[in-house]
Amino acid sequence: MKNNIMFIGIAGGTGSGKTTLSRHIAEAFGDLVTVITHDSYYRAQDHKSPEERAAQNYDHPDAFETELLLTHLESLANGEAVDVPVYDYTRHTRAKGTVKAEPRKVVVLEGILIFCDKTLRDRMDLKLFVDTDADERILRRIVRDTTERGRTLESVISQYLTTVKPMHEAFVEPYKRYADIIIPGGGDNPAALDMIITRIKKQLENEQ
Amino acid sequence: MKNNIMFIGIAGGTGSGKTTLSRHIAEAFGDLVTVITHDSYYRAQDHKSPEERAAQNYDHPDAFETELLLTHLESLANGEAVDVPVYDYTRHTRAKGTVKAEPRKVVVLEGILIFCDKTLRDRMDLKLFVDTDADERILRRIVRDTTERGRTLESVISQYLTTVKPMHEAFVEPYKRYADIIIPGGGDNPAALDMIITRIKKQLENEQ
Repeated sequence: MKNNIMFIGIAGGTGSGKTTLSRHIAEAFGDLVTVITHDSYYRAQDHKSPEERAAQNYDHPDAFETELLLTHLESLANGEAVDVPVYDYTRHTRAKGTVKAEPRKVVVLEGILIFCDKTLRDRMDLKLFVDTDADERILRRIVRDTTERGRTLESVISQYLTTVKPMHEAFVEPYKRYADIIIPGGGDNPAALDMIITRIKKQLENEQ
Repeated sequence: MKNNIMFIGIAGGTGSGKTTLSRHIAEAFGDLVTVITHDSYYRAQDHKSPEERAAQNYDHPDAFETELLLTHLESLANGEAVDVPVYDYTRHTRAKGTVKAEPRKVVVLEGILIFCDKTLRDRMDLKLFVDTDADERILRRIVRDTTERGRTLESVISQYLTTVKPMHEAFVEPYKRYADIIIPGGGDNPAALDMIITRIKKQLENEQ
């Protein structure tokens, strides 16, 4: 663990509860913990046509600028703040501004594909995989995308069957085996959350 | 959590690493933690013929005197020591003596079928499932049964295919979903063990 900074990776399929779990951790520790999502590192697509952008496969490892993320994680490990990019989902490319992420003794990285990349995986000191049944995951995704993102049910189903599900089977599920801990039943698992929070507390106490 | 006594259940298939994990916990805490195995509660078979005894299906819930175990867990929760039975695998029945288990603030119960019984499951404050691939599990079982228990390879394979595997599919695997935490890769998982030990330490500190 470089400079006594602990990197915790939270992976899991779409709608598995990764974000809920990250939120619970953020609520428990506030500014003591930095949370970064892999999604923030979706590649800029300014050079592409609107049609090409809209056709982007967001569930494939190539969609992410993981090399930039790795540089940022190295900076955080060295105690330096980083400027995390912001992705604009309506324009399907990177937005202008960035969000500063401060170096903390615990850095949480969440994303569907973070265990798929070996360098990223090896960076993590603790690898958690949120494991939720596929039917529950697609139901959550339908609700999220139709209510929060203004998508039609048909487009959600089409995207799910053509890219989300095959990419899950190729790049998410096979990498579950690399997790240190698998958390069944989504992000609202009190006993698992209690263990994670207890472990983070120990890490934060160690530094003082 | 009754009387602030924490019950931790460790389930998983044969050869998954349950015993290894329990041993790591016992080594870390010594007398501060009581470890009980469900196997100790195999039913007495004194009334059966030697042939009937040898044919016992040890992987079915009915093979265990779980009602006695539940009484014992209740006693431990009330701060009372219990006399844990001892099973004689050569005679296929309960041995004469018992082993005293002292009441402690943390009680670990390990066994393949402990999440299959709802009353037992509800007794546990933290449910861990050690999840190991079937091929690795059967390899460990072969080594254990042929070297430590003097069994032939043929008899291990025959028992595995006729009872162990079907019982696993009926009574072990389906109850993995009730676990709070799933531990992949057996009992030697340093990051998972670290989390479990940290959680137990918190429990032991709470009582002081």
